Amino acid sequence: MRMYDLIMKKRNSEELSKEEIEYMIQEYTKGLIPDYQMAAFLMAVYFNKMTDKETVDLTMAMANSGDILDLSAINGIKVDKHSTGGVGDKTSLVVGPMVAALGVPVAKMSGRGLGHTGGTIDKLESFPGFSTSMSEEQFFKNVNSIKIAITGQTGNLAPADKKLYALRDVTATVDNLSLIASSIMSKKIAAGADVIVLDVKTGSGAFMKKEEDAFALAKEMVKIGDGAGRKTVAIVSDMDQPLGYAVGNALEVIEAIDTLNGKGPSELLELCVILGTYMLIGAEIATNEAQARKMLLETIENKTALNKLAEFVEAQGGDKAAVFNTDLLLRASIIEEITSSEEGYVEHIESEEIGIVSMLLGGGRETKESKIDLAVGLVLHKKVGDKVNIGDSIATIYANDAVKLATAKKRFNGTYTFSQKPIEKKLFIKGIIK
Amino acid sequence: MRMYDLIMKKRNSEELSKEEIEYMIQEYTKGLIPDYQMAAFLMAVYFNKMTDKETVDLTMAMANSGDILDLSAINGIKVDKHSTGGVGDKTSLVVGPMVAALGVPVAKMSGRGLGHTGGTIDKLESFPGFSTSMSEEQFFKNVNSIKIAITGQTGNLAPADKKLYALRDVTATVDNLSLIASSIMSKKIAAGADVIVLDVKTGSGAFMKKEEDAFALAKEMVKIGDGAGRKTVAIVSDMDQPLGYAVGNALEVIEAIDTLNGKGPSELLELCVILGTYMLIGAEIATNEAQARKMLLETIENKTALNKLAEFVEAQGGDKAAVFNTDLLLRASIIEEITSSEEGYVEHIESEEIGIVSMLLGGGRETKESKIDLAVGLVLHKKVGDKVNIGDSIATIYANDAVKLATAKKRFNGTYTFSQKPIEKKLFIKGIIK
Repeated sequence: MRMYDLIMKKRNSEELSKEEIEYMIQEYTKGLIPDYQMAAFLMAVYFNKMTDKETVDLTMAMANSGDILDLSAINGIKVDKHSTGGVGDKTSLVVGPMVAALGVPVAKMSGRGLGHTGGTIDKLESFPGFSTSMSEEQFFKNVNSIKIAITGQTGNLAPADKKLYALRDVTATVDNLSLIASSIMSKKIAAGADVIVLDVKTGSGAFMKKEEDAFALAKEMVKIGDGAGRKTVAIVSDMDQPLGYAVGNALEVIEAIDTLNGKGPSELLELCVILGTYMLIGAEIATNEAQARKMLLETIENKTALNKLAEFVEAQGGDKAAVFNTDLLLRASIIEEITSSEEGYVEHIESEEIGIVSMLLGGGRETKESKIDLAVGLVLHKKVGDKVNIGDSIATIYANDAVKLATAKKRFNGTYTFSQKPIEKKLFIKGIIK
Repeated sequence: MRMYDLIMKKRNSEELSKEEIEYMIQEYTKGLIPDYQMAAFLMAVYFNKMTDKETVDLTMAMANSGDILDLSAINGIKVDKHSTGGVGDKTSLVVGPMVAALGVPVAKMSGRGLGHTGGTIDKLESFPGFSTSMSEEQFFKNVNSIKIAITGQTGNLAPADKKLYALRDVTATVDNLSLIASSIMSKKIAAGADVIVLDVKTGSGAFMKKEEDAFALAKEMVKIGDGAGRKTVAIVSDMDQPLGYAVGNALEVIEAIDTLNGKGPSELLELCVILGTYMLIGAEIATNEAQARKMLLETIENKTALNKLAEFVEAQGGDKAAVFNTDLLLRASIIEEITSSEEGYVEHIESEEIGIVSMLLGGGRETKESKIDLAVGLVLHKKVGDKVNIGDSIATIYANDAVKLATAKKRFNGTYTFSQKPIEKKLFIKGIIK
């Protein structure tokens, strides 16, 4: 087999066999196929696409390129939840404790934030003392005893994807459905869960700006998951404006706690309930949607989810008192309101820009090496459809540095656009693919 | 400027500016743009093509990536002739002396053969003692005194093309009109001639199998040449069967000498006359086609072209007696006839396969390092349209090695296909683009 022939095949729109894809990924991971041949192949894929079969084969070849985690030490059906990333997305902090309170083992590997999107681990570190460093043994023990633990990326998961992604990133070959779907799914499959619930974001703050692209990606990933023998469900949800009101690590933790207290934004709660529903059904703890929804809402009412968060924070070295008194979380030193100079109904919020405002305040990483300030960020007061009068506060900015504050405020300008006519609210949950 | 953005632009079918193309070629030649980015770019070009303007800009950027030869030491208008390569193509050996005899300065840089196509230098080395090694000064002196000299590639001509071609070769991105045309023309422009006459081959033995592709390439190259201020004419000629009858270095020299003696294949002569016509017009030695044709045919009748060949061979150290007595050229030790087991009219000859038969006999290089046997090859006796009876000799094979002979004979099988009905001969000269 020669890589040249595989490039030619894809260039000429022929389907690659499973053996050919396995050969290509194995040799590329070993460094025996050079980047320039893979780059030509990827560009050919950009133009000629991959079939469903090729996509599943590529995903499995990448998943098999490194360790496949063995979660058999955890009792019960293991469920993983993954979001394609958005601004103000704190769902893991809410739905994790909710389903754990109902007995679903949540063994989550999570990453840190990069660019305008945050990472769950960063957010959790807002709890003084919280740590994700633990032995594999301790991790399994925590999941078995309290049903929830979160750790950083461990093991050598899907190294082929890592190498391929880095190449796509510099060769303008990121935007291809099969490549995006296989990249996400190869890591999820290697992470070992039995059930995968995906939250695919769409809109101005998401990777998939267009709804049809988000649906296509959701369908592709469900197809891959099922093809790999993992029960997979995907929710397509709106990211045309930030999720909830808070953007920034500690600020998002506060909003998550508010939600577990039954006082959070309705859309955030709705998304958590829907994701949780398919986690419960996947874990065979609920048999249908109505039952799952009822069980999940009860964890809010009877505070079992909030208590589960406290238990989880404590188990990982954090101060659980902060769950019940958020004043104990890190606080920013400069707090400023941004008031509106316009009047009207909020027509659109540039979510990606809101994420960048938080990053500029110090709340996100510009590069992997950046140190972040967990206290900073912003809390919006107006969302799409809300009526705004001149002088109304649109958002509160939390900063620790006057220069960064000035830069961030400047960037905030223009993130909101207004209409003189009332705006019809768009559907928040766009669809469920299963 | 960033290469990433240029890949993205081409991927999205936008036109690159001259500055962008110059940046890309300069940085790539210096090694500052990695192969993997260039490979992705090339594959995007394969799918989205290049505009005429981009193609001219690319050609000039590649021509300017190394030395541009200064031929000003040669008197008169310098004319270059280039063939896209075929089997049995000995036109340079015929037309070179013809136009030199009429005063056109032929300062030719030529290459050695690779694969199934031969090189003019290899062929000339069939004359005992002939050498293309000479100083630049001697080269210019020869052209000025006897009007013809041939040397190997000198200088660092279009290094960007060399690097780019090597990359295209391993990334399945050779087949693109703009890339093919700019590759040829960048070298021709760097070689410094004022007038470029191109012989674009089409058919089974040519790089461009389809006539329409050959015409497209011819037009593209003429457009580039004119865009670069070089008077350029392209002839599209048939390579659906080998040119003439002889294939193999010394064998082709004999056929070239026969042609200069007025006893060569009519198609070979016709092609040389047409190429020569535009060389004479370009050099302003003839003013129209009819005049040029007459002058050229006279060089055959009055033997001035044959004498010019002798003068040229002698000037480069070769034995000129061999021009008048071809028995002095190298001769193979094994001579075998291939007879037909079929009866009918020759419908098709797989020219590329005929070239490979010669290569397998030792007459061509399988790799750049191969040593070749100048004496071996084959002489066909039947061409398309000819009537063949069972037992007729189709070809004579000249070999020096019994094992190679056996391999070559085996490969020869199936190169000829026959029809029971007479075959209409196809037009040999397909068109002239000027």
